[in-house]
Amino acid sequence: MGYGQQTQRVMQAVRSKVSSRALEPGEKLPSIRGFASLMNVSPSTVVEAYDRLAAEGIIFARKGSGFYVSPKTQPFSVSEIGPHLDREIDPFWVSRQSLDSGPDMLKPGCGWMPADWMPNASLRKAIRHLSKAEDQLLSDYASSRGASNLRRLQARQFATEGIEVNPNQILLTGSGTQSLDLICRFLLRPGDRVLVSDPCYFNFQAILKTHQVEIVSVPYTTTGVDLELFEKAIIEQKPRFYISNSTLHNPTGVNLSAQSAHKILTIAARHDLILVEDEVFAEFLPQPTPHLAALGGFDRVIRLGSFSKTLSASVRCGYIAAKPEWIEALVDLQVATNFGGPSPIATELIYTCLSDGSYRKHMEALRARLAKARRAVSANLAELGFQTWLMPEGGFYLWCLLPEGIDSAELARAALQQNMVLAPGDVFSPNQSMGRFMRFNVSQMGAPETYEILRGLMCDL
Amino acid sequence: MGYGQQTQRVMQAVRSKVSSRALEPGEKLPSIRGFASLMNVSPSTVVEAYDRLAAEGIIFARKGSGFYVSPKTQPFSVSEIGPHLDREIDPFWVSRQSLDSGPDMLKPGCGWMPADWMPNASLRKAIRHLSKAEDQLLSDYASSRGASNLRRLQARQFATEGIEVNPNQILLTGSGTQSLDLICRFLLRPGDRVLVSDPCYFNFQAILKTHQVEIVSVPYTTTGVDLELFEKAIIEQKPRFYISNSTLHNPTGVNLSAQSAHKILTIAARHDLILVEDEVFAEFLPQPTPHLAALGGFDRVIRLGSFSKTLSASVRCGYIAAKPEWIEALVDLQVATNFGGPSPIATELIYTCLSDGSYRKHMEALRARLAKARRAVSANLAELGFQTWLMPEGGFYLWCLLPEGIDSAELARAALQQNMVLAPGDVFSPNQSMGRFMRFNVSQMGAPETYEILRGLMCDL
Repeated sequence: MGYGQQTQRVMQAVRSKVSSRALEPGEKLPSIRGFASLMNVSPSTVVEAYDRLAAEGIIFARKGSGFYVSPKTQPFSVSEIGPHLDREIDPFWVSRQSLDSGPDMLKPGCGWMPADWMPNASLRKAIRHLSKAEDQLLSDYASSRGASNLRRLQARQFATEGIEVNPNQILLTGSGTQSLDLICRFLLRPGDRVLVSDPCYFNFQAILKTHQVEIVSVPYTTTGVDLELFEKAIIEQKPRFYISNSTLHNPTGVNLSAQSAHKILTIAARHDLILVEDEVFAEFLPQPTPHLAALGGFDRVIRLGSFSKTLSASVRCGYIAAKPEWIEALVDLQVATNFGGPSPIATELIYTCLSDGSYRKHMEALRARLAKARRAVSANLAELGFQTWLMPEGGFYLWCLLPEGIDSAELARAALQQNMVLAPGDVFSPNQSMGRFMRFNVSQMGAPETYEILRGLMCDL
Repeated sequence: MGYGQQTQRVMQAVRSKVSSRALEPGEKLPSIRGFASLMNVSPSTVVEAYDRLAAEGIIFARKGSGFYVSPKTQPFSVSEIGPHLDREIDPFWVSRQSLDSGPDMLKPGCGWMPADWMPNASLRKAIRHLSKAEDQLLSDYASSRGASNLRRLQARQFATEGIEVNPNQILLTGSGTQSLDLICRFLLRPGDRVLVSDPCYFNFQAILKTHQVEIVSVPYTTTGVDLELFEKAIIEQKPRFYISNSTLHNPTGVNLSAQSAHKILTIAARHDLILVEDEVFAEFLPQPTPHLAALGGFDRVIRLGSFSKTLSASVRCGYIAAKPEWIEALVDLQVATNFGGPSPIATELIYTCLSDGSYRKHMEALRARLAKARRAVSANLAELGFQTWLMPEGGFYLWCLLPEGIDSAELARAALQQNMVLAPGDVFSPNQSMGRFMRFNVSQMGAPETYEILRGLMCDL
């Protein structure tokens, strides 16, 4: 890299304008001086940014006249938008390494549990059951909202968490990620702003980039988002919505308290902000904490989640719960972009598993197994000088502070040479301010060589 | 309804500008006179359009000063964009009726075959086989391109059609619709234009609307798109790509000849146009015709398809074949928006079925059964005065011209009262010029009362 954050910020602003067509192909760019004052940087920073964008072919200089947007727009590439990181440590790289690496790769940076931690016995039983299902279930499209038996089951589950919701207010989708994508399609236009926490789940950034919006972030503390800065950002940046995990925040593991949830709702109501609550980790707590939808209802809250973390990521299904008129619009969007709800085969497998007592027993055992693993891995990492930032109440993540002088991106790059995928802090950080943090998945760290390799890497750095 | 096409065109232009933020909230609209000359309509048409948009709350009038974009942008609703049809006969309505109606509904307008026409025996066998699969297949995410065994099988299948493709040039997706959606994300920006045929598959229009682009159309003839008007539209409208079904065009059933494919490729090369070929009906022909990808390779052609029409719409999976650098970008987009490839359970079921000899036998029998059904239904409809526009070489659609004086939308509305879903011509027509046509699905017309109801409705109209 080698050029400053200010230059990157200016380049990013121009890229957004070009990709959202706020600047049309052939159009003249703002003057150096004008843009410098607008962006609150020095004119030389803008000169550098324009020069680099010209080198990239996005704009071109006309002698004595200034800079213009290049006439031919290129096809969209997600990686061209946003701060250009090293491919090796950008969010897509971590996802693609985790998704595509073979079984001999060690994956402490991975976002899911190994196959032998998952309820495969329940799933096999459900598959055998499925082979006797009616023809129509096996061959037809889903209804536009997805299977009604699973939506009714979900509504009953929500009721136990104190959330009152009609099954018709639940839309089943292809995955938790697709849930968020549909919400973005519904709420966002290019150039809008969205508020996230720093750090946050890295795919929030990836998906928001595909919608060509600006990401605004607020620091995350051990009790949740910094509320003062949260309100300030809402006032100053006017984001379209705020998105975060309420249960066991990814990557920190913080479980939002009911008090914090109440304060977030109060601030959001004051400024008429929409809140999107990603509850993909809800099942990892024995007793759910009342969060945004439970306390505030669905007036301004949209809840999403999936079954990928606890049941199976191979059986793809997610959900959205929201107010009825929003669900109606989301149904149309899902008909247009996926021709209806998710696979009836997938939803039937999930319904069968969730209705089965053996799944509940598996989850109880899993929570105990994870608690033990969190303690053991935290102790092992402490010996390497990796300090657990906060011991989570559940789930499989530990967010660790590395010893002074160790850069987590460098460590991740070195680990890759040893066939190990790590998840360095800046991948989760919109401001690139988490270079001393690393996210570990305790369920993926059973192999003793994991620690040997980490120790060796630390010595080499 | 009740107002002219010109007014609708002006309203649509303003809506596009507002939703793409070419007109910002609070910004003043172009003057009546200026916009009238720009749109080549009379000032009174613009006045009417502005008044109607003000009534809808999209813009507002300031006394003595003109019209302004309303300050508060509403969440996006697909149905707000594009010509506002009767909800009952708009493309979403037909989709949602077909998806959500119960089994007692008659569905000649439906876009798929009844369950008992599908290869459920093969599928059940594959499901039983799946219950013995490895843990990892049952619980893990897919690789970012989707299962490699299915991609290799696809590549071999393409080779028999004369299409040379590396399995890494194939991206598996959640459905044929999601394939097109990913392609749109990759190639389109709000305000772009896309070229389709008139008539065309109605969901092309729906999905393009969600990407906020302008749909440009060219008439379709019995030998494919009108080539003279095709080239004219490319020159004048500069569309980003052209999309169509090459095999058994939906709704007309025309199978593109190799000669026509060659001419389309030549024109596209002359004007550097990207061609998207939806081959979802490829398996309905015993011998595939060489189409765009077969003749022209993947330089400017993207091929997509799915397994929903022939194997199962419940096992959701589609594909994209394109040149390697485009596939790389599409992989990133799918990671961001779906966290990787489609369900490994789904792709394994498809792989097992396609590798099974009984599936091939089923397809042979199905083609014969459909040929018989097309002849029988065409004869039955002829008795009602419905004239088959062209007898297709395969598939389950008949595109029929209704007797003079019968409006297909009116007929569809009346049919709904009798629990029958029809697919009226204008649902497929970007220009709303197909009011005398109706698409019938021969596999959904086995019940004798279908014709009795149609006959009764014709008498009442």
